Amino acid sequence: MLRTHDLGTLRAEHIGQTVTLAGWVGRRRDHGGVAFIDLRDASGVAQIVVRDEEDFHSLRNEFVLQVTGTVERRPEGNENPALGTGEIEVLAENVVVLNTSAPLPFQIDEHVEVGEEARLRHRYLDLRRPGPNANIRLRSEANRIARELLHGDGYTEIETPTLTRSTPEGARDFLVPARLAPGSWYALPQSPQLFKQLLQVGGFEKYYQIARCYRDEDFRADRQPEFTQLDIEASFVEQDDVIELGERLVKALWQLIDVEIPTPIQRITYADAMARFGSDKPDMRFGLELTEMTEFFKDTGFGVFKAPYVGAVVMPGGASQPRRTLDAWQEFAKQRGHKGLAYVLYKEDGELAGPVAKNLNDHERENLAAATGAKPGDCIFFAAGQQNDARALLGAARIEIGHRTGLIKDGDWAFVWVVDAPMFEAAADAVAAGDVAVGAGKWTAVHHAFTSPKPEHMDTFDQDPASALSYAYDIVCNGNEIGGGSIRIHDRAVQERVFRLMGLDEEAAQTKFGFLLEGFKYGAPPHGGIAFGWDRVVSLLAGEDSIREVIAFPKTGGGYDPLTAAPAPITAEQRKEAGVDAKAEAKKDEPAKA
Amino acid sequence: MLRTHDLGTLRAEHIGQTVTLAGWVGRRRDHGGVAFIDLRDASGVAQIVVRDEEDFHSLRNEFVLQVTGTVERRPEGNENPALGTGEIEVLAENVVVLNTSAPLPFQIDEHVEVGEEARLRHRYLDLRRPGPNANIRLRSEANRIARELLHGDGYTEIETPTLTRSTPEGARDFLVPARLAPGSWYALPQSPQLFKQLLQVGGFEKYYQIARCYRDEDFRADRQPEFTQLDIEASFVEQDDVIELGERLVKALWQLIDVEIPTPIQRITYADAMARFGSDKPDMRFGLELTEMTEFFKDTGFGVFKAPYVGAVVMPGGASQPRRTLDAWQEFAKQRGHKGLAYVLYKEDGELAGPVAKNLNDHERENLAAATGAKPGDCIFFAAGQQNDARALLGAARIEIGHRTGLIKDGDWAFVWVVDAPMFEAAADAVAAGDVAVGAGKWTAVHHAFTSPKPEHMDTFDQDPASALSYAYDIVCNGNEIGGGSIRIHDRAVQERVFRLMGLDEEAAQTKFGFLLEGFKYGAPPHGGIAFGWDRVVSLLAGEDSIREVIAFPKTGGGYDPLTAAPAPITAEQRKEAGVDAKAEAKKDEPAKA
Repeated sequence: MLRTHDLGTLRAEHIGQTVTLAGWVGRRRDHGGVAFIDLRDASGVAQIVVRDEEDFHSLRNEFVLQVTGTVERRPEGNENPALGTGEIEVLAENVVVLNTSAPLPFQIDEHVEVGEEARLRHRYLDLRRPGPNANIRLRSEANRIARELLHGDGYTEIETPTLTRSTPEGARDFLVPARLAPGSWYALPQSPQLFKQLLQVGGFEKYYQIARCYRDEDFRADRQPEFTQLDIEASFVEQDDVIELGERLVKALWQLIDVEIPTPIQRITYADAMARFGSDKPDMRFGLELTEMTEFFKDTGFGVFKAPYVGAVVMPGGASQPRRTLDAWQEFAKQRGHKGLAYVLYKEDGELAGPVAKNLNDHERENLAAATGAKPGDCIFFAAGQQNDARALLGAARIEIGHRTGLIKDGDWAFVWVVDAPMFEAAADAVAAGDVAVGAGKWTAVHHAFTSPKPEHMDTFDQDPASALSYAYDIVCNGNEIGGGSIRIHDRAVQERVFRLMGLDEEAAQTKFGFLLEGFKYGAPPHGGIAFGWDRVVSLLAGEDSIREVIAFPKTGGGYDPLTAAPAPITAEQRKEAGVDAKAEAKKDEPAKA
Repeated sequence: MLRTHDLGTLRAEHIGQTVTLAGWVGRRRDHGGVAFIDLRDASGVAQIVVRDEEDFHSLRNEFVLQVTGTVERRPEGNENPALGTGEIEVLAENVVVLNTSAPLPFQIDEHVEVGEEARLRHRYLDLRRPGPNANIRLRSEANRIARELLHGDGYTEIETPTLTRSTPEGARDFLVPARLAPGSWYALPQSPQLFKQLLQVGGFEKYYQIARCYRDEDFRADRQPEFTQLDIEASFVEQDDVIELGERLVKALWQLIDVEIPTPIQRITYADAMARFGSDKPDMRFGLELTEMTEFFKDTGFGVFKAPYVGAVVMPGGASQPRRTLDAWQEFAKQRGHKGLAYVLYKEDGELAGPVAKNLNDHERENLAAATGAKPGDCIFFAAGQQNDARALLGAARIEIGHRTGLIKDGDWAFVWVVDAPMFEAAADAVAAGDVAVGAGKWTAVHHAFTSPKPEHMDTFDQDPASALSYAYDIVCNGNEIGGGSIRIHDRAVQERVFRLMGLDEEAAQTKFGFLLEGFKYGAPPHGGIAFGWDRVVSLLAGEDSIREVIAFPKTGGGYDPLTAAPAPITAEQRKEAGVDAKAEAKKDEPAKA
């Protein structure tokens, strides 16, 4: 080692010892005849005293030094109690410059504001800053805690392939030309889903992996083309078993940041979550539930409220919002694809104001406050229209209200399991939301095609797909879906019925999922699992809004990496070699026929 | 859970309890009126007694059952001491068939011989067999042991990107079209090399990752297009530090199979390894070192031995090999690209026999045994020619001799560090060996372009590349390279000199490695590391010859996956969407200019 001690570990007990240290030059202060350097390594910072002017003057920020010297007590009055090493300083006897540094594109300092592009372009400098550095270390700890818990439960860590077959799971695959089979392509997996199920067929019973996954999506906010999930699957389990494991994991993880999560975590059905919070990932840190007002307005004379669904959400204290703010709410609604956000101001004096109020009849005016739970001084927001659309708008307004009114507080944590989601949604809706429908059918899977119907829908899900509920469970933290899973289909006949409903004919099912169907022929056990969105979990632990803050080398929008400038054009020779333009040879063996 | 107990955990203490079990039907025996089933789950096997004929007769091998029944003591004389559950059996009261199984393509049995293609095509069945199952579980344990040790040493686990920029490291990159930047491509990393070095620039000091790596190589025996390495890098370390860590890792891993490896592990220089064993990965389980005979034969009249190098290796007891066997040795040499393998049989009676013997002069005949160390009854093999070629043949012959004579014994373990490898080799040789030369120069890196020269060659390596030694170290186990690493270059000027020597002009260096050179401007610390070929390490622990045996879903030759039939043709729509045929737009920003 080029050092005998880590800088951050030096204490009074080392006084008098000769030590060799290595690290980066932080702040320098020249007091004329004696100079001070804050030398930093991964363990912390210690103060180096340099008496040799020549040694000192050539030094610049972020030079890498090897310093040999004697640990001394700081002169009285110069101690720094904020620093672990604040009692001591090191009198340098020999200073070796291990490396120099050019002037920095930005300072290595928590407090300097730097644009994200610049930070990522020089990510190795950004990572020297305390915040980004701590985030990556926290992630390592989260990995460790999760693995320890799963190991203790008898789970086997199994690595699944990443050069595999294209098996659409709701997004586009990244493709990789296979040079040795010109014209053929591998796909990068969207998740280890099929492999982890086949491992259950293979008798492993308890599998996990912290797995890299790939989705070639149009970049929505805060998505990464490659991301990580903590992937878990087990045999002979029921929903409660997976939920119990998930709760122990979450509990252990949040203990990393000294937060004790009470368990069991509450559960809510998907239908309730939509009705009460206008979201399948409700933020439970605060109340302000939606009120359905369809019945209330059934005889209304106000045209806007003559709709299949009318709902309301109350903003405490919102009656005093200035006109400008109320206009901004209209903008808020328009950005979400709605015409506007109707509101009634319930003034402190009991008067109902705002443009909607005058359209209400007496009965409505008299009972509105009681029906919505509004108090004098509140604002009542309304949405009317198709139930899903209107609820989504109210749900978004609810979150915004939570932030604006301070009902959502930093440091609050609220977890909830959302269960009993529908099995299917209209394929057209899924495509509109940016997903890829797996089959050509009218219906596509809400979770994925391998999710089991609940037992009570087992016989009827294909006759009545709109009502069928799935054996799925999502865990939501502060309004973020951090994990989701399901009990899977293990019966080949059921799986085939699901594929058929999704419009995958037998040939298409064979081509895409033949190896799974084949596997299901040979004693597939009942099984289920869960996957945690690891980037999101760690970003919540780190208190960061963006998952990019907990990824060592993230990509920006459009999948661009400012550090390496990937993706990049390839040479004609690379293209030729990769076989990109070759016609596939006469097909190799098909996957095992089911 | 669908069960109350794991099958393998049932013991006499459970007698009298009602239990619910789940697992797969193994052997069935019908004794008329009472039938026995070996029911298997991940924990083991227990005997189920079924009295209901109807229940029993419908059952087939590998059906999945849920059995509720009472644990009973086996009748006296029927205990099976070989089985943990051998004292008990479970009298079935209720048998539920959770799933059926079609007739199997092969039996779930350790002893059935099955071709590899069939095994991999139904890998989920293969993995139910005890051997393959144990291999995958052993791998999980190896991961755990390595992570625990590294965590204890303060290492941070950091995930590096796999959609990145093409940065050749001695093999071809797999490429991935970037749909959102049509005409541009990502590359899958051959290793996290550049990222782990940048993490050192980023101040992490101790990094590790069990990392997926990708090399698009022509398939040599037992290579996989995707493979795993235990990747480690640290700052302020010297060669001895990395070697010490590597030894602790190896020691901890081999303890998994109850083998105690003595440390420190011996070291040998690359030059010595080549001279004494004819290999840069010498198998040290046995002696039989090569003898250089160039000087001995300097005045020989035998044309074949008038060569720049002549060497010999002795096969104990080899004088009695029949003619057929000696002919086979010629074939052995020819398959390795040599003309043949000269030999002299040193008969028990002291006579020298074989076609070479008569070409030797008296002096040579008299002194041959003493010079080579041969004893009566031995065979002396010779190779003559270019030193490297001849040594390689003798080295291969030495290994073959070790196997044939029983000097290489199952259960023996011999580790060695090979140090002081040359920095450079002729680019033509690298290409001939199937590697990709990174630059256009006459020289290319033996390890990789980021390996530091040893201090004594720092000033001269570009004037005298043939003599320059690198700060590299490989760890070899039983003749397999299981890990390798080096102290890296951290000085930008040195890195540029290496690139230049390799024929990378400034523009090419910028395009390929600009972001590394840029990083080196800002206080890169001295650093080094190591990577273990994880598939190979685990295959050695498992006692398997092929790394495919320790990969859950391996690919066969040519990168084909018999399970999913990947790679496969893609649709025209996929091709269009992926932007494979788009021209790259005007170049985006170049990587940060250095």
